[in-house]
Amino acid sequence: MQTLDTVAAMRQASARFRADGLRIGFVPTMGFLHEGHRSLMRLLRPQVDRLVVSIYVNPLQFAPHEDFDVYPRDPEGDSAICEEEGADVIFMPPPAGDPTGLYPPGFQTRIHVPALDDGRLCAKSRPHFFEGVATVVYRLFQVVGCDMAAFGEKDFQQLTIIRRMVADLEMGIDIVGGPIIREDDGLAMSSRNAYLKGVDRQRAVSLSRGLRAMQGALADGVTDAAALIEVAKAELEVDALDYLEVVDKDSLAKVGEVTRESRAAIAAMVGRTRLIDNVALVPRGAGS
Amino acid sequence: MQTLDTVAAMRQASARFRADGLRIGFVPTMGFLHEGHRSLMRLLRPQVDRLVVSIYVNPLQFAPHEDFDVYPRDPEGDSAICEEEGADVIFMPPPAGDPTGLYPPGFQTRIHVPALDDGRLCAKSRPHFFEGVATVVYRLFQVVGCDMAAFGEKDFQQLTIIRRMVADLEMGIDIVGGPIIREDDGLAMSSRNAYLKGVDRQRAVSLSRGLRAMQGALADGVTDAAALIEVAKAELEVDALDYLEVVDKDSLAKVGEVTRESRAAIAAMVGRTRLIDNVALVPRGAGS
Repeated sequence: MQTLDTVAAMRQASARFRADGLRIGFVPTMGFLHEGHRSLMRLLRPQVDRLVVSIYVNPLQFAPHEDFDVYPRDPEGDSAICEEEGADVIFMPPPAGDPTGLYPPGFQTRIHVPALDDGRLCAKSRPHFFEGVATVVYRLFQVVGCDMAAFGEKDFQQLTIIRRMVADLEMGIDIVGGPIIREDDGLAMSSRNAYLKGVDRQRAVSLSRGLRAMQGALADGVTDAAALIEVAKAELEVDALDYLEVVDKDSLAKVGEVTRESRAAIAAMVGRTRLIDNVALVPRGAGS
Repeated sequence: MQTLDTVAAMRQASARFRADGLRIGFVPTMGFLHEGHRSLMRLLRPQVDRLVVSIYVNPLQFAPHEDFDVYPRDPEGDSAICEEEGADVIFMPPPAGDPTGLYPPGFQTRIHVPALDDGRLCAKSRPHFFEGVATVVYRLFQVVGCDMAAFGEKDFQQLTIIRRMVADLEMGIDIVGGPIIREDDGLAMSSRNAYLKGVDRQRAVSLSRGLRAMQGALADGVTDAAALIEVAKAELEVDALDYLEVVDKDSLAKVGEVTRESRAAIAAMVGRTRLIDNVALVPRGAGS
């Protein structure tokens, strides 16, 4: 496994792989890797010849008041995990502002998917977040030159936006969604779970409990989205609910009645930590 | 000269040119070609092996109340001009919504350069205009596969945004700016000049007269931007002034005093026609 820390080195490695006819798989991450990231590596490993994992805390997707500066970092732990999962390359671009980095000097361009972003779900409280995500993913795809890339379904809106961008810009990359990996008690894995201490760690479980309760109610025949949302709310032990919605799985538009496969998505503050989670809502008879 | 009217056909032609090692030059237009467009073709023709001109009235850059439906069109006249100027290919993508067109079904992605756009110059009255422009130009560049492309300095903000996008996304395309081509009386050439009738045609000249007066005052030693703007305003015979500003030629930020090469830019309504124009402001001793 090699660690590459400039865009030029990554481009060179990628060009070599491609010249050799090798298929490149890619897992972009912000580091502080956990089982969720491992599962994405395992998903791609058997389908590609070379597996690249990037570790980059992307400043474009953080607002000034957010946790960019304190986002958890663990380069050695991350390397060990990548090695264990059979990655061939760890790509660690230098920080923004470095001329050898992802954003050339004076970089200003943004990639944006307004219909899946503006005012929807996480964009309500993080208005420039997905613009930052789409832009960094675009740049990473360019530099890594991958044939296939994996993203966790935990960031469902992100996955939907990336799929749309790749289709619209004809990037020719297979986007694979990996199922959410959970702790034994149901909490969706996240690097930000490291912030949860004491009772907050217990209360954090109420997000997945609420979503599971919605699935249960749907299985019992409740299809009205507002009623399903009330079922979940009864479970929540959070400090502030950012959103709890039932949306179309492709357009992310709000759904009034669950007549076909939809997505229930939640974001909430537990203590000072913002957590997100989501589940599929598949009505009886709609298949899976 | 061949006329190609699907994305697939253009891609195929481009791939053939590239396989033959030919250098491709590109002039994107919205048709209704005039001397300004001709000048861009003449600029590229000697520098490339194959010259492609696109004609596409891009719906993404029009607001609902704007003139998309009535934008002047003249496919036969355009073909004749392209032929005269030695173009090898006219690329006329089908209208948006057509699955063989520039925007695949469900297309939602936008390319945006907020720092050069939001709230600046033309973006004040046309908030999504440059997002539409950058997006269509990105798609055209992808499909045409050009090495070099020419844009008129008349659309100075557009040119600045395209340069930034191409640099940021490392598109590897030389962007050439072509000087503004003017009628004998100074009116900057524009397809929209076709809308100007009678006295409005005369009054339209006041934009370039105002800008020239600014250059004269600068040559006389006036460097204060506000004072220069007043000099130009005294010349204007317009129905509504959208903006008249002195801006940095790279950042498009307002300039208070012209101590290095800057740009004076104007947009105004003459009758119901929106016209734009701009000139370089080069202070004495700053070179050109």
